[in-house]
Amino acid sequence: MDLQAVDLIKRLKYRYLRCLDQKRWDDIAGCFTEDATAAYGGGAYTFEGRDDIVAFLVRNLGRVTVLTSHRCHHPEIDVHAERARGVWAFDDVVIDTDFNVTVSGAGFYTDEYALDGDQWRISHTGYRRTYEQIGAREGVEGLRLSASWWATDGRSDLPAE
Amino acid sequence: MDLQAVDLIKRLKYRYLRCLDQKRWDDIAGCFTEDATAAYGGGAYTFEGRDDIVAFLVRNLGRVTVLTSHRCHHPEIDVHAERARGVWAFDDVVIDTDFNVTVSGAGFYTDEYALDGDQWRISHTGYRRTYEQIGAREGVEGLRLSASWWATDGRSDLPAE
Amino acid sequence: MDLQAVDLIKRLKYRYLRCLDQKRWDDIAGCFTEDATAAYGGGAYTFEGRDDIVAFLVRNLGRVTVLTSHRCHHPEIDVHAERARGVWAFDDVVIDTDFNVTVSGAGFYTDEYALDGDQWRISHTGYRRTYEQIGAREGVEGLRLSASWWATDGRSDLPAE
Repeated sequence: MDLQAVDLIKRLKYRYLRCLDQKRWDDIAGCFTEDATAAYGGGAYTFEGRDDIVAFLVRNLGRVTVLTSHRCHHPEIDVHAERARGVWAFDDVVIDTDFNVTVSGAGFYTDEYALDGDQWRISHTGYRRTYEQIGAREGVEGLRLSASWWATDGRSDLPAE
Repeated sequence: MDLQAVDLIKRLKYRYLRCLDQKRWDDIAGCFTEDATAAYGGGAYTFEGRDDIVAFLVRNLGRVTVLTSHRCHHPEIDVHAERARGVWAFDDVVIDTDFNVTVSGAGFYTDEYALDGDQWRISHTGYRRTYEQIGAREGVEGLRLSASWWATDGRSDLPAE
Repeated sequence: MDLQAVDLIKRLKYRYLRCLDQKRWDDIAGCFTEDATAAYGGGAYTFEGRDDIVAFLVRNLGRVTVLTSHRCHHPEIDVHAERARGVWAFDDVVIDTDFNVTVSGAGFYTDEYALDGDQWRISHTGYRRTYEQIGAREGVEGLRLSASWWATDGRSDLPAE
């Protein structure tokens, strides 16, 4: 039933985004079909195949000195049998403590999903940004990091999920 | 059935917000009933009728040098037959590259919706802000725009929706 | 039925978050079971019992000079009979106009919920931050507050909910 499929597809996207910010690269691979494709930055960066996509993510976000918050909103998901198409609004914040910059932006994802056996997976993902901006973290009045997943909050005995 | 009506009302709000950030003014009109009313800023700005509301939006957000991210969260929607009421948390970012300012804020929407033929539409919308702040974009350490819908990401051959 | 329980649990979380930003401390108590526990900051701050948790919230966020935006996203909620477990992504902004600072961050909540009579309530809540940062509000180029719930938008004759 559609409402249930839409719910499973939302869970897939939420798991993907959580794994992205928690750097769970092994878990993230399973979010994509093997032949998944990606087109980021309105088509500026394109990738073919799950391994290619995950390699790009690890290359860019693998360091624990890169603290990220990827958030999706406003799901407009249409299911057609074993295929689905989803448009999402997103915003993201990337704090790089090596290069002392904050990159933040907003835009819209256009995804395609496929029922792969009994699992919905991402078969295509792409986004086009409304805006993206880069700001310095050095010489900014009184700006300091006060907590992070891999430092202060690492004391957590809570399961991360 | 209520769950389905709530789902359609969420899709309506998400389409409205997407059209707002993508400046799809023709599509946005259809999100409102003809006699829709709006009360923004806790009642500081009020509008009567769909045309009046859309004219206000175009006047304020029409320029492609105004890059916006309007996001709604936490839907609390109650349906009563062909009427519904929805409370949403929101946050928004407005970057004006002509006036070199960023306006950002958060608050709560109180909407009313009506089943207009076979379509749910917004019959009233209003918000009250928890806060709004204005920041300069000139003289801010290392701040620069690195992507935008109508420039860099315009290369996109992806459908915007 | 699960989909309905998940929906009620989302409404509970959204009501809790709205009460938090609108400082509705009486309403917030009812969101928790009497023996609810909390573990914030990855376990740095722990509280036992509804009264203890609410007292902490009032102590930290009670002043109307503290303007907050707490937002949750990406619900991954699993229901097991009269218990449920939920993981949420979150981001928050806290503007303190007495101390002239903005605290902003992102992370993940891990909640437990219980069906208490006919009402779902939070029986445990905890979060671990991906990051948190503190920024000054004095000496920041052109930064000013332009609206707030308890000032400008207080004129509202709209119901807050």
